[in-house]
Amino acid sequence: MLNKQWLLASRPFGEPTVDNWTYTETEVPAPSEGQIVVKVKYISLDPAMRGWMNDGKSYIEPVGIGDVMRAGTVGEVVESNAEGFAKGDHVYGHFGVQSYAVVDTAGVHRVDPALAPLERYLGVLGMPGMTAYFGILDTGAPKEGETVVVSGAAGAVGTIVGQIAKIKGCRVVGIAGGKEKCEYLVNELGFDGAIDYKNEDVKKGLKTQCPNGVDVYFDNVGGDILDDVLTRINLRARIVICGAISQYNNTVPVKGPSNYLSLLVNRAKMEGIVVFDNAKRYGHAAQEMAGWIAEGKLKAKEHVVEGIENFPDTLMMLFRGENFGKLCLKVEHAE
Amino acid sequence: MLNKQWLLASRPFGEPTVDNWTYTETEVPAPSEGQIVVKVKYISLDPAMRGWMNDGKSYIEPVGIGDVMRAGTVGEVVESNAEGFAKGDHVYGHFGVQSYAVVDTAGVHRVDPALAPLERYLGVLGMPGMTAYFGILDTGAPKEGETVVVSGAAGAVGTIVGQIAKIKGCRVVGIAGGKEKCEYLVNELGFDGAIDYKNEDVKKGLKTQCPNGVDVYFDNVGGDILDDVLTRINLRARIVICGAISQYNNTVPVKGPSNYLSLLVNRAKMEGIVVFDNAKRYGHAAQEMAGWIAEGKLKAKEHVVEGIENFPDTLMMLFRGENFGKLCLKVEHAE
Repeated sequence: MLNKQWLLASRPFGEPTVDNWTYTETEVPAPSEGQIVVKVKYISLDPAMRGWMNDGKSYIEPVGIGDVMRAGTVGEVVESNAEGFAKGDHVYGHFGVQSYAVVDTAGVHRVDPALAPLERYLGVLGMPGMTAYFGILDTGAPKEGETVVVSGAAGAVGTIVGQIAKIKGCRVVGIAGGKEKCEYLVNELGFDGAIDYKNEDVKKGLKTQCPNGVDVYFDNVGGDILDDVLTRINLRARIVICGAISQYNNTVPVKGPSNYLSLLVNRAKMEGIVVFDNAKRYGHAAQEMAGWIAEGKLKAKEHVVEGIENFPDTLMMLFRGENFGKLCLKVEHAE
Repeated sequence: MLNKQWLLASRPFGEPTVDNWTYTETEVPAPSEGQIVVKVKYISLDPAMRGWMNDGKSYIEPVGIGDVMRAGTVGEVVESNAEGFAKGDHVYGHFGVQSYAVVDTAGVHRVDPALAPLERYLGVLGMPGMTAYFGILDTGAPKEGETVVVSGAAGAVGTIVGQIAKIKGCRVVGIAGGKEKCEYLVNELGFDGAIDYKNEDVKKGLKTQCPNGVDVYFDNVGGDILDDVLTRINLRARIVICGAISQYNNTVPVKGPSNYLSLLVNRAKMEGIVVFDNAKRYGHAAQEMAGWIAEGKLKAKEHVVEGIENFPDTLMMLFRGENFGKLCLKVEHAE
């Protein structure tokens, strides 16, 4: 079996380019005792990957130069030397950007393709879903009737954050790029309003869409949009810092929020979240979200691009705001 | 009786200048029913005054053009038409930058010059004390053994924050300007370390003085120092935003904290505080702090400048970092 792999060749300065990657094809080795061989079917593409490419201390080790790029994935077990896993099982794990993985089973768990399409385990039933669930409920802690704003609203995390806030009885406004996405948020997902940051003045949009100010802001983008929202927050507002995709490819220092003193005036707080902290409660979250999906209150949207060969360019869609829902790469296998 | 008053003449752009003030002398009017006449003895000079000079929405109304500048003050009642106040009473209130005040008694309360020097009611027993107490205990919430860093450490709020953190069993490091202040923090107030931002590299100082990282940062200054501390925070650190004196006279936008994504990596939070929110609990705080003072665990330091005539220049001492302890103006009365 031929394994197609994308290795990190060098650390990017600013936007990643093709030169930061090496594509290789190697024979899949035989599994050792305790290992399984997984045929990777879907690869998750996430903004966080940009951070993993950097050197330096963060919440997780950087990917080493020459290593297979880290990625959340779902696939099928094609060979097993490990207890608890059998050929034909479908599994989730950080198998990386490759078409086959030979791995130990720590951190690997089974998923059921009969309950949901496989790629959904990378979105609403995977890390983006968990990030949204714990971030909005625990840290944002929205109360009925409050106004919740989410940026990156048409992305993997944003779509779920907004829908959960609606379930909790909030007024929900999404910030997204482009008319199509904004219409989707309002018409398909039931958001109360949407602001198209590519074609609208965000500050004006916030004024119109959030007449009672902003109680919770779930930030995926950072930069000017964070600053704009800071001018509209209410007393004791909660700002959830989930990411800052507008800043990840900076070649200059990150733009700090100039309007952060609005936190003082409004006795508000800004708090960072990392999904892994909630690992013990993933089961509970998945169960509750599965219930909402079954009741039709929570809709999933995946954006699937075909062909592992397209990895470098597909990753860049995230930073260009071109994905619409959870971005995944579908891996084709010849055999 | 002649009333010496400083009125706000115009709103400053950047640093306040003498042109922003009008000095007037007028006759003190007779008090109406329900009013008292207060001979103002000490005027509190606070960084917050700079904000009150600006127009625009904040946690409190701006001072109007032509109005007496707002200030916390202590003085003596020389005439009373109000129930509950008698001639000879000493009182605290926002009587403004003037030598006499004719006022209603809402927000006025008696203080006891036998228990503490009058100026102390503007410092540790007044707003700076309350700000420090609630900010560090409620929002910073330091646990025994944690490392607490405070900027503006030799100022009215900073000295108290650090001493309370010591009482709670923390390692305390102060950031202040100049050797004299730093020595005072360590030798007189019992801080574990001090960093002289005027003569030292703050990042290096933090590395040396906080070998276990920073759990709580109480920020009075903003700017580069906030960014430096953000590089050293621990998991679940709490940053208390009390002020940003380095930014108050900016003619360019406030410098937002470029390193704010450290909040994400460390699941940390940054929260703003305004002392007035705790008004109902001032009594409890004053009592506990008076106890600490009596036990010798909490030391007060006031920096008294004489002469209401010197108000405009004395105010600027705050922004030049020239005050050492709580800055007050002592008002002389001819009679």
